[in-house]
Amino acid sequence: MATIEGWYCLHDFRTMDWAKWKLATEAEREHALHEYKGLLHKWETIENEHNGSHTVYTIAGNKADLMFMILRPTMKDLIEVKTAFNKTVLADFTKPTFSYVSVIEKSSYSGMSANPFGDPAMRAKLYPTIPKTDYICFYPMSKLRGEKTNWFMLPMEDRKRLMFEHIDNGKPYSEQVKRIVTGSVGFDDFEWGVSLFCDDALQFKKLIYETRFDEVSAVYGIFGSFFIGNLLETEGINQFFYI
Amino acid sequence: MATIEGWYCLHDFRTMDWAKWKLATEAEREHALHEYKGLLHKWETIENEHNGSHTVYTIAGNKADLMFMILRPTMKDLIEVKTAFNKTVLADFTKPTFSYVSVIEKSSYSGMSANPFGDPAMRAKLYPTIPKTDYICFYPMSKLRGEKTNWFMLPMEDRKRLMFEHIDNGKPYSEQVKRIVTGSVGFDDFEWGVSLFCDDALQFKKLIYETRFDEVSAVYGIFGSFFIGNLLETEGINQFFYI
Amino acid sequence: MATIEGWYCLHDFRTMDWAKWKLATEAEREHALHEYKGLLHKWETIENEHNGSHTVYTIAGNKADLMFMILRPTMKDLIEVKTAFNKTVLADFTKPTFSYVSVIEKSSYSGMSANPFGDPAMRAKLYPTIPKTDYICFYPMSKLRGEKTNWFMLPMEDRKRLMFEHIDNGKPYSEQVKRIVTGSVGFDDFEWGVSLFCDDALQFKKLIYETRFDEVSAVYGIFGSFFIGNLLETEGINQFFYI
Amino acid sequence: MATIEGWYCLHDFRTMDWAKWKLATEAEREHALHEYKGLLHKWETIENEHNGSHTVYTIAGNKADLMFMILRPTMKDLIEVKTAFNKTVLADFTKPTFSYVSVIEKSSYSGMSANPFGDPAMRAKLYPTIPKTDYICFYPMSKLRGEKTNWFMLPMEDRKRLMFEHIDNGKPYSEQVKRIVTGSVGFDDFEWGVSLFCDDALQFKKLIYETRFDEVSAVYGIFGSFFIGNLLETEGINQFFYI
Amino acid sequence: MATIEGWYCLHDFRTMDWAKWKLATEAEREHALHEYKGLLHKWETIENEHNGSHTVYTIAGNKADLMFMILRPTMKDLIEVKTAFNKTVLADFTKPTFSYVSVIEKSSYSGMSANPFGDPAMRAKLYPTIPKTDYICFYPMSKLRGEKTNWFMLPMEDRKRLMFEHIDNGKPYSEQVKRIVTGSVGFDDFEWGVSLFCDDALQFKKLIYETRFDEVSAVYGIFGSFFIGNLLETEGINQFFYI
Repeated sequence: MATIEGWYCLHDFRTMDWAKWKLATEAEREHALHEYKGLLHKWETIENEHNGSHTVYTIAGNKADLMFMILRPTMKDLIEVKTAFNKTVLADFTKPTFSYVSVIEKSSYSGMSANPFGDPAMRAKLYPTIPKTDYICFYPMSKLRGEKTNWFMLPMEDRKRLMFEHIDNGKPYSEQVKRIVTGSVGFDDFEWGVSLFCDDALQFKKLIYETRFDEVSAVYGIFGSFFIGNLLETEGINQFFYI
Repeated sequence: MATIEGWYCLHDFRTMDWAKWKLATEAEREHALHEYKGLLHKWETIENEHNGSHTVYTIAGNKADLMFMILRPTMKDLIEVKTAFNKTVLADFTKPTFSYVSVIEKSSYSGMSANPFGDPAMRAKLYPTIPKTDYICFYPMSKLRGEKTNWFMLPMEDRKRLMFEHIDNGKPYSEQVKRIVTGSVGFDDFEWGVSLFCDDALQFKKLIYETRFDEVSAVYGIFGSFFIGNLLETEGINQFFYI
Repeated sequence: MATIEGWYCLHDFRTMDWAKWKLATEAEREHALHEYKGLLHKWETIENEHNGSHTVYTIAGNKADLMFMILRPTMKDLIEVKTAFNKTVLADFTKPTFSYVSVIEKSSYSGMSANPFGDPAMRAKLYPTIPKTDYICFYPMSKLRGEKTNWFMLPMEDRKRLMFEHIDNGKPYSEQVKRIVTGSVGFDDFEWGVSLFCDDALQFKKLIYETRFDEVSAVYGIFGSFFIGNLLETEGINQFFYI
Repeated sequence: MATIEGWYCLHDFRTMDWAKWKLATEAEREHALHEYKGLLHKWETIENEHNGSHTVYTIAGNKADLMFMILRPTMKDLIEVKTAFNKTVLADFTKPTFSYVSVIEKSSYSGMSANPFGDPAMRAKLYPTIPKTDYICFYPMSKLRGEKTNWFMLPMEDRKRLMFEHIDNGKPYSEQVKRIVTGSVGFDDFEWGVSLFCDDALQFKKLIYETRFDEVSAVYGIFGSFFIGNLLETEGINQFFYI
Repeated sequence: MATIEGWYCLHDFRTMDWAKWKLATEAEREHALHEYKGLLHKWETIENEHNGSHTVYTIAGNKADLMFMILRPTMKDLIEVKTAFNKTVLADFTKPTFSYVSVIEKSSYSGMSANPFGDPAMRAKLYPTIPKTDYICFYPMSKLRGEKTNWFMLPMEDRKRLMFEHIDNGKPYSEQVKRIVTGSVGFDDFEWGVSLFCDDALQFKKLIYETRFDEVSAVYGIFGSFFIGNLLETEGINQFFYI
């Protein structure tokens, strides 16, 4: 049941306090955005040096307005990134609504080479640059531990078979929809986090709905909230925050 | 199990901060309503050009005071509509209480023509103008995945039969009560959203109560919160917001 | 399974912001109470003309301080009553904590005359004046749709028998405890609302505890929050709000 | 299944707004405490005249900072006590976090004399002075109504046997740990409230853990939040509130 | 089923109000940190004299920014520590988000000497100095009392066997990951609290995931929220709070 882990991962959801933002002067708003872009610039340097990765999204509906997805080498880095953002002026105009703490994980179901860290393909999965697709879909999930049906009491062989079936059923989407699976046992309230990336939001629905009929999802899947976001690139910042 | 999807859909629920609204000057309130009507006017142009649709309701009880239902071609449009409303002055006097993100969906249970997008009747269902009835009833729902009873493990034939039975039992109401079913797998916390439209609020109760005895509802239906709203037409705005 | 419905019903729960109320000047408080009494006077006229009914209660515990129970002919009326209260000055010193939206309902279990609306006894039940007893007990409830035990899959005969048994067991209390049952399928999160009226609060506990052993309650009853209130008559207003 | 009831009971939990308390002037704080002590003095008179009883606790953890337990002859009294406290200046520096409304109850499992109100021992239990021990442990609870296991469908004899077993297992603690059981069916969200009193907080844990293995607890007990408090006597007030 | 208990334990979670902290003057912030360090110094004296222990962490994600873990001889001490912190200036810039109240517990599954308090190894476990590792992982948990599967109805022998199996499976981690198990029956909403200590956050995930397949976890474990923190040593305070 061995797993192998890569970078730590934070999904940080924020709501804008638009009323407060409008009350600020234009100079204050400009200063806040200037400082925020400086922070993003530091993060980009980290990404360019392959010491982490990040993306920022505007979020659909009222669960949040913004979401940051951040990858970093250590859990301490992850806490420091949150603290650094909270110290910016822009953060004073946001309120946290949700977050998810996890670590990139490759599970043993798919087999593993003797020295996975020496395998460039595996390294690229453990220490990825987050795809800059137009949309992200994020949800946390666990596996059922019911009184009759209990994922964790299944023999390894059965779990393997069910997982492969599920992976197979998702294959028609694998070109279009990229995914980063993160493990959160011991770190947050569900067991895994799933981040899907695609330029067409509809593919998330089609992929998840179709594979909902897979036994592993239908019978064993427990799903948390679903969040859907649109990539907010640096050049879109001024427009999003413009009053 | 193929589905076909149309416009994206946002249900956006807001509570009025009446105390703050009263503290505003009459000029501020007039300005806020003027700007809001301008936004509505833009939305009406979009609706008239068949690029989307929208309705606004006052909501019964304390779950919310207002609800916007918005249809748009892309998920990004849906996020931008929310952001545009949040940037209005009126939005500063509201607080989000709930929202629902989904997409208009026609499911394969009812069969589908070879090229549904070429079929005018289907197009009218995928890209509808929201009925301007006096009342709306909205609720999100999922299908049970219990330890004994699991919708997603039923054979397609059984699901089809149960759905047809349900559709049949609702037929006596089909003249009076219009409905828009939206899918939200991957987009929000339930699997579907149901929006019912009628000039007589009582018909919602009668329809939903009677079909609650259908096997598909009784055994497999998981229902979220129910919201009931009264159409707030542009000519009713001044009266609703008048202090 | 036919039901017959009367007036729409709102239970509106509010917490007093006592700190803000104390900060108001005595003139502001007097103005707020004067305006509020004017609203109550309008409601009394409506009640006297048999176009609706209402009661106001102080609530035990911290779930709320005040509760309004309002009956009106249409759902739109119900929304307008809420909005009208929210526009008063007194409302600015309250915060909504809960609400319940429903409609008076007589179910078919008890049989029905050919033209129930022509039957004066039935009319009195569908369009009642809310009893002005010292206490109210309110709770929403649903019927279980479990994996083994499902009210909505029982044959009509069994449901009828269980309901009659329940009604019989409550009979010793029927003199002392009046009740108004409202249906909320499609309107709010539970299926029914139960409002009990009595001059002795203890009778609520005795009635509900004893009938909790009835099969329909023990096996099929799902109960929401229970609220208990003491009638706040117009002559008690000054004392309740006095600082 | 008859029960006999005594005084009504309110558990009222509050969090201190310490930041606001510090912003008050020393004179304001002194005034608030002086007024509060006056209220306590009135309550003590009531207790001394055996018309009610009360205790005040500081609470462990962040669920609350203070808890009032109040016994009074009528539900109306209970509401008036809450309102009276809310009208004090001190109350403006607190926020309600939870509450529980119930009534002292002796159940028929333990048998009852023909005229329990004439029995001095029973009277002392129905109209008690709350023990002034160092610690209180409070929790609300219900009995399971599951699909297989349902307390309210058990024959009276079985419930009696299970309750006696439970009472027997608690006996080694009966000297050290006093308890007041209150019924809340129809009054609040659980069916009973349990208030335990002891000078050694550890005995609560030992008693509840050991009796958790009793069939009535293990199989049928549904437990709400647990709260643990330390008696705040009048002489300790100045120290607790001192800044 | 005897247990033996040591020090009482508070886990106190706080969110920083960074916007308010930035609004304070530098002098106010310096004063707040100076006072806070004075409190920490008092706590260190207590720890050095073996009258208690404490650690402070920065927390990952938005559930909290800071967490205090405090051990003290009595429940009253635990309440006083919370109150003392709340009276500091720094506390006015924090908001409680969660807390957990428990007591260090050694259970009888592992056997016990005749006089455990006289056994130095046992004393070190009951009255420990909290390990100053880089990371903490905290979660509350209970054991299932389901309709079919009920920990508290298992024979003692079975519970013993399952616990030993679980302890055995965790042994490969016992060098790296230290743990303090605290009991909270009667004190808080779950039955136990688990605090794990390690210099490598990943080991928490590996340990908890691997032992999730143990029957005692897979079948009987009910887990609350998971929190992960990084040790905030006194020398790191200025950097964390620096604006």
